[in-house]
Amino acid sequence: MAVLANMIETHPRFSSEESREFATELEVLSLCEQSCLLCADACLEEKSPGDLRVCIQRNLDCAAVCRATAGMLLRRTQGSNVVLHSQLHACVAACQACRDECALHARLHRHCTVCADICRECQEVCNAALARLAPGEDTETA
Amino acid sequence: MAVLANMIETHPRFSSEESREFATELEVLSLCEQSCLLCADACLEEKSPGDLRVCIQRNLDCAAVCRATAGMLLRRTQGSNVVLHSQLHACVAACQACRDECALHARLHRHCTVCADICRECQEVCNAALARLAPGEDTETA
Amino acid sequence: MAVLANMIETHPRFSSEESREFATELEVLSLCEQSCLLCADACLEEKSPGDLRVCIQRNLDCAAVCRATAGMLLRRTQGSNVVLHSQLHACVAACQACRDECALHARLHRHCTVCADICRECQEVCNAALARLAPGEDTETA
Amino acid sequence: MAVLANMIETHPRFSSEESREFATELEVLSLCEQSCLLCADACLEEKSPGDLRVCIQRNLDCAAVCRATAGMLLRRTQGSNVVLHSQLHACVAACQACRDECALHARLHRHCTVCADICRECQEVCNAALARLAPGEDTETA
Repeated sequence: MAVLANMIETHPRFSSEESREFATELEVLSLCEQSCLLCADACLEEKSPGDLRVCIQRNLDCAAVCRATAGMLLRRTQGSNVVLHSQLHACVAACQACRDECALHARLHRHCTVCADICRECQEVCNAALARLAPGEDTETA
Repeated sequence: MAVLANMIETHPRFSSEESREFATELEVLSLCEQSCLLCADACLEEKSPGDLRVCIQRNLDCAAVCRATAGMLLRRTQGSNVVLHSQLHACVAACQACRDECALHARLHRHCTVCADICRECQEVCNAALARLAPGEDTETA
Repeated sequence: MAVLANMIETHPRFSSEESREFATELEVLSLCEQSCLLCADACLEEKSPGDLRVCIQRNLDCAAVCRATAGMLLRRTQGSNVVLHSQLHACVAACQACRDECALHARLHRHCTVCADICRECQEVCNAALARLAPGEDTETA
Repeated sequence: MAVLANMIETHPRFSSEESREFATELEVLSLCEQSCLLCADACLEEKSPGDLRVCIQRNLDCAAVCRATAGMLLRRTQGSNVVLHSQLHACVAACQACRDECALHARLHRHCTVCADICRECQEVCNAALARLAPGEDTETA
């Protein structure tokens, strides 16, 4: 993470205050992607991979979405907040779907437990990024 | 495309009626991804890549999103329509942003013209997929 | 493919003579990637995905390698022929491994037959690209 | 990294002894990918991105190769060591090319310094993985 924070600090467009927070977001998205790929592979190696079919598919979906989201987040292309927003929303949805399915197998397969945990963390990170990019947007006020 | 249609026809979960339409969707997403990557590289090779900075970034964003969308679409994971929906929406937004930016440079750079065209086509394909997956959803009725 | 050929023709660094050949290479790499992902998903949906475990893994490996190779090929970064060469070699190996495994299941699963065919075609395309980039390199002469 | 080590420990095919080493490899590949993408974006935002054209291209090449390599490494598909080997070799080459180019700009752009460092580390990790997978292979003995 120190590496990413250093990269971000030396980027001409980012302020150093945001570098640590931003580095954490990128790290969590990447961990979630790799955990989902590892969970898919572990599911496939279990005795009855047929029972874990949907879990494998959601793992692969979530990994693909996390990766696209990380790529967009690190560019933070000027003026394309609409795109980043909808991609972050897609990532929250993909993490939720993966986490729900992993939870069904958590008692039998510990990799599903670990994967569900990182998906939850990734959701939180995406929601925090959404809040930061458009403060107050999704808030219900009286 | 014949290859993809053949792959889809032999997939145990897809009906042969949908194979051609589905193959077209995958093909267009892939063309859009590669065109965006080619446009980014062409922009970089132009005399003043600094003027094309945002175009390059939106190209890279759009390529990343198209790729994630194609991956999810070809799996069509059971019961995760919410995820596919939000990813298709993100793809529509990314294509729109890329197309808008490419249009600004279309007079000077023909690769931007070609790229904007395929982004528009990709948007249409994503909107058609959205309509097919949830008929009537985004429709305003009296 | 017309789209890719148009993109390449308008790229400031490529000659129009090579555009059609180059477009074919990119198209085949992309078809191979998507076919491998479709084959993996089809295998997972078959009655005994456990018997197709290695096939699914090789499909995913081959898809990942094809994608990286296409990305590098379309940039053809100046002076980094060593990198493109070794990536093309890795792609030839990944296609061979995937094709060998698919061949074992071709009698039972037609998606494996189609996938093996496109892997073979992709290998040929990579070998042609290798020959074009470094004419005579791998040739044994008397 | 603890997350990845946990994922690997709970994978049915990996021994817990190798989990920490393996987690480090995956983490470094992912850091290198993201650092290269950040370096490309930072280069693009500098005053004269035209001078950093090749650096941006090598960054994108290296990111694509690191990602494919991480995906294959975490699957470690049975019996396809040939593929993993050639992919690791391609990754060593891509890291070297990126590092060489970044070194040319290190005095002016600190993001290039940080990126060159992580590319070097990634090379070492790939070389270690190569040595572990085929002990003695590339060794010159008397």
